[in-house]
Amino acid sequence: MQLGVIGLGRMGQIVVNRVLDAGHDVVAFDLSEEAVAAAADAGAEAASSLDDFVDRLDEEKRIWLMVPAGDAVDATLDELDPHLTDRDVVVDGGNSHFEQSVRRAEATKAAYLDCGTSGGPAGAELGFSLMVGGPEWAYEELTPVFDAVATGPAGHDRMGPAGSGHYVKMVHNGVEYALMQAYGEGFELLANGRYDLDLEAVSRTWNNGAVIRSWLLELCEEAFREEGNDLGDVADHISGGSTGTWTVQEALEQEVPVPLIYQALSERFGSRDEARFSRRLANRLRYGFGRHEIVREE
Amino acid sequence: MQLGVIGLGRMGQIVVNRVLDAGHDVVAFDLSEEAVAAAADAGAEAASSLDDFVDRLDEEKRIWLMVPAGDAVDATLDELDPHLTDRDVVVDGGNSHFEQSVRRAEATKAAYLDCGTSGGPAGAELGFSLMVGGPEWAYEELTPVFDAVATGPAGHDRMGPAGSGHYVKMVHNGVEYALMQAYGEGFELLANGRYDLDLEAVSRTWNNGAVIRSWLLELCEEAFREEGNDLGDVADHISGGSTGTWTVQEALEQEVPVPLIYQALSERFGSRDEARFSRRLANRLRYGFGRHEIVREE
Amino acid sequence: MQLGVIGLGRMGQIVVNRVLDAGHDVVAFDLSEEAVAAAADAGAEAASSLDDFVDRLDEEKRIWLMVPAGDAVDATLDELDPHLTDRDVVVDGGNSHFEQSVRRAEATKAAYLDCGTSGGPAGAELGFSLMVGGPEWAYEELTPVFDAVATGPAGHDRMGPAGSGHYVKMVHNGVEYALMQAYGEGFELLANGRYDLDLEAVSRTWNNGAVIRSWLLELCEEAFREEGNDLGDVADHISGGSTGTWTVQEALEQEVPVPLIYQALSERFGSRDEARFSRRLANRLRYGFGRHEIVREE
Amino acid sequence: MQLGVIGLGRMGQIVVNRVLDAGHDVVAFDLSEEAVAAAADAGAEAASSLDDFVDRLDEEKRIWLMVPAGDAVDATLDELDPHLTDRDVVVDGGNSHFEQSVRRAEATKAAYLDCGTSGGPAGAELGFSLMVGGPEWAYEELTPVFDAVATGPAGHDRMGPAGSGHYVKMVHNGVEYALMQAYGEGFELLANGRYDLDLEAVSRTWNNGAVIRSWLLELCEEAFREEGNDLGDVADHISGGSTGTWTVQEALEQEVPVPLIYQALSERFGSRDEARFSRRLANRLRYGFGRHEIVREE
Repeated sequence: MQLGVIGLGRMGQIVVNRVLDAGHDVVAFDLSEEAVAAAADAGAEAASSLDDFVDRLDEEKRIWLMVPAGDAVDATLDELDPHLTDRDVVVDGGNSHFEQSVRRAEATKAAYLDCGTSGGPAGAELGFSLMVGGPEWAYEELTPVFDAVATGPAGHDRMGPAGSGHYVKMVHNGVEYALMQAYGEGFELLANGRYDLDLEAVSRTWNNGAVIRSWLLELCEEAFREEGNDLGDVADHISGGSTGTWTVQEALEQEVPVPLIYQALSERFGSRDEARFSRRLANRLRYGFGRHEIVREE
Repeated sequence: MQLGVIGLGRMGQIVVNRVLDAGHDVVAFDLSEEAVAAAADAGAEAASSLDDFVDRLDEEKRIWLMVPAGDAVDATLDELDPHLTDRDVVVDGGNSHFEQSVRRAEATKAAYLDCGTSGGPAGAELGFSLMVGGPEWAYEELTPVFDAVATGPAGHDRMGPAGSGHYVKMVHNGVEYALMQAYGEGFELLANGRYDLDLEAVSRTWNNGAVIRSWLLELCEEAFREEGNDLGDVADHISGGSTGTWTVQEALEQEVPVPLIYQALSERFGSRDEARFSRRLANRLRYGFGRHEIVREE
Repeated sequence: MQLGVIGLGRMGQIVVNRVLDAGHDVVAFDLSEEAVAAAADAGAEAASSLDDFVDRLDEEKRIWLMVPAGDAVDATLDELDPHLTDRDVVVDGGNSHFEQSVRRAEATKAAYLDCGTSGGPAGAELGFSLMVGGPEWAYEELTPVFDAVATGPAGHDRMGPAGSGHYVKMVHNGVEYALMQAYGEGFELLANGRYDLDLEAVSRTWNNGAVIRSWLLELCEEAFREEGNDLGDVADHISGGSTGTWTVQEALEQEVPVPLIYQALSERFGSRDEARFSRRLANRLRYGFGRHEIVREE
Repeated sequence: MQLGVIGLGRMGQIVVNRVLDAGHDVVAFDLSEEAVAAAADAGAEAASSLDDFVDRLDEEKRIWLMVPAGDAVDATLDELDPHLTDRDVVVDGGNSHFEQSVRRAEATKAAYLDCGTSGGPAGAELGFSLMVGGPEWAYEELTPVFDAVATGPAGHDRMGPAGSGHYVKMVHNGVEYALMQAYGEGFELLANGRYDLDLEAVSRTWNNGAVIRSWLLELCEEAFREEGNDLGDVADHISGGSTGTWTVQEALEQEVPVPLIYQALSERFGSRDEARFSRRLANRLRYGFGRHEIVREE
């Protein structure tokens, strides 16, 4: 089948390559001519503009958007919409908030599939996990493409109606924060504990048969191998946090306690604040009631 | 080589079988004659008493203890000790506290290897992850046995001196608590969220390529498949907790914050207490300052 | 001076009484004739309708709204607005979200003061703590009324521009959740600990000179006195939670970690859910990897 | 009555002064001659040695120890013991672990009262809160002294048998950690939130009538007044932590969840660690699965 891909960043190129490798046709477009040229080198048909892109597609258009979540999605959809009918299908493979996806599904003339994508760069070879929301017929229609982009048929599924794909991906990321922090606590204890341990060896031993083996633990193993046992110059700073924030916001809305996810998100916030006000106040209060010496900045 | 195994419960039998399958000889003993008979059926040499067990071993004894952590280990060691020399090796494959292992290593005449064992019943086929502490020569000596019991050479390693094997296993379990709770939070949110989701399908999709894929997530998938999407009659009750408690105690000692592990342990405690006092007091206090209606037991 | 009060529930009546006691005039209105009659008994001028209420006010109107946060505030303001000019002042003494207050301050023709009110029924005698947001001149104008309703001049202050009063009150309530839970944890440990303790005596001893003495601890003392050492039939259920939820939402927005407030809020959510899904899954997973017995509902 | 006081540090001197002010006699001893001289200036009888101290006491000795918790208590008791009978009473007013107090109560010939003391330097004028454990007759006997040292009769009580005084004090301190952190979170949010707020004014307004008013909040008010709205050069560092650690250890033992106390203790540990390993690992893992840029130390 034929797939049009808009957005040829790192993830978009992987989608193009995997779909081509599965024997499908790809029409590729990006604002960067370089990116389009790279896709063409890989075997895709290059589009020189959005109009050109639309012209090159079959009558029943199958389009995969891999543009940054946010305004870029809306801008692209606005431009596409005049060319779309209700027999076309648009997949949003980015990390949009599920409420945006519900809104877009209602606004666009085409069938809209929100597609949570997980697996990172490693997915280039292994394929991704795809959590898809939207109309059943559109999901069925795109199945050959999902088979190619995912790890295979088991690596994608329709979660439910519009928004459910990005909803499940949001929760996936919330859990991811907590898993990372859980491993981090374990290794922090081992790094500060009673024994001089080789943390790469610990990770490797755990990854081979232990209950807590996982892909994230394989990444820990890789981190210790590449950065050293003390993680070298890796800083005490965790960027990001939007999907984790969304998860906690939704959990508040649903009144579901998610203390581990919340704590993991808090560690991110805390890691960016050099002098936490709450701790400074506690330091000062200990003087207030106990005349304990106040520790002051030098 | 020849290995003597004392303790033929579920895990002990698996050790016997895997060592036999690797072509080694096994002398097996347990207080239960039935258990000894089962080991004999599998090809082990049956010992009728501890004396008989010792007599059947080669001059340089290699002994694997797979008895419940605690007094049983000390009782067995007390009985064995008169028969041991410093050329013998004893492996403790159970879940002992690392300080007990340090003490036992000092007390016994033999070389003592504390061996944290992870992998559960699934390890019968796949092999285990073995975290070993103790003298290097003894670890080298037992390598063929560890190769057989573990998933292979990558599934075991010497962590360091006496106690380090059980130390790393303790932290492993602390992390395990947090990982389970992290997945639990994610699924609790999905089960109470905006979409009717098939949690087995969610787990399967995640297990195929997503960042959070893991063996524990495969067990989640299995749980939803076997118990149903709402977990059927599975109760809100989590037993166990000793290794998690040890982990938090050690983290307190080392002044390392482990809030996720602590929280996961707390959920276990909380799950066994039908009416938490702190919540009952909060309920009452809201009346105290706001005349909010007190909710009372019926 | 003269104050018009709309909304004569428990808190509204207290406002009426305190303002009358301070020697001011009050015009009172409520949809309930009974409530109006009660205010009249206390010495207020009774209004039979909103029109009548407005007619009875001085040219420069000073109005205190004490209606339930939400639609009732908007409905009342909609009705009032045609009668208001920019020389009038409206105080919203309820528990509105600060963003609603910002919006209302912009929408109404009068000067708008959002007034966070804390102190509960005990404030009837002692006076309240009033956190006020809005234009400085309006705050100055209402000072005699604030002096009367608050514990005195020290019990009220202008926090800043529109919304800041309800903002500070929101954070106050978030802290309140955490304080209640902190005391609850302490008493839960004492109730389950090594000694048979008289918790009323503990509270009283603490309230007389200890670092943690507070009004909430006085309410704990009262609770043990009135309900008994085991809190009798008070249920493990905490209602409410909206201001705590707002606090956490704002903290997420500002990327400020508030783990104690979050945890206290979580306890509320958890206390209303008889069988937490996350715990049920953990119970089941322990069987998955360790063949630990599954606890099932009977 | 007559009281012997050993240990004339800041707290010991306060005990001496308050007991003298109540019209009792005091015999004072300390290894520092200066400290003894200060007590003598205040009206106490000065002892030049422990033997001299004992000689100056009445036949039925009433002794208050105010020495640092730990070895100093044991050393003093060892020296005193030959002079004691079962009609004597020793009060340990320091911050000992309750298990030490149980042990000492069993070891000493005298009646032993463990006395948790809270209130800090402010107690010099107001008196302290005293939580006392030990034999009832000894507590009764010392009542005049407790009346003088405490805020009055309501400021002291017998909690139960040996150890219970220090047990209740331990929990008191655990709660104290959580309260401080709860206020800290609130002020951290206000300091980083949407409004420029005067935090001293906020504290003062809250302290006058609000639900969360407390002595600790008065200390917050004082801190903002003395250090400024941004706490000036007060560092992000919280010392101490032993009583909080004991509280969590005991809660683990009793299987009582204390997540707020634990979190507050964790903040102390975290505040002393400039580059948390868990966060550094999370930073690195985000590269592992998402190629997010690694933040590195400069």
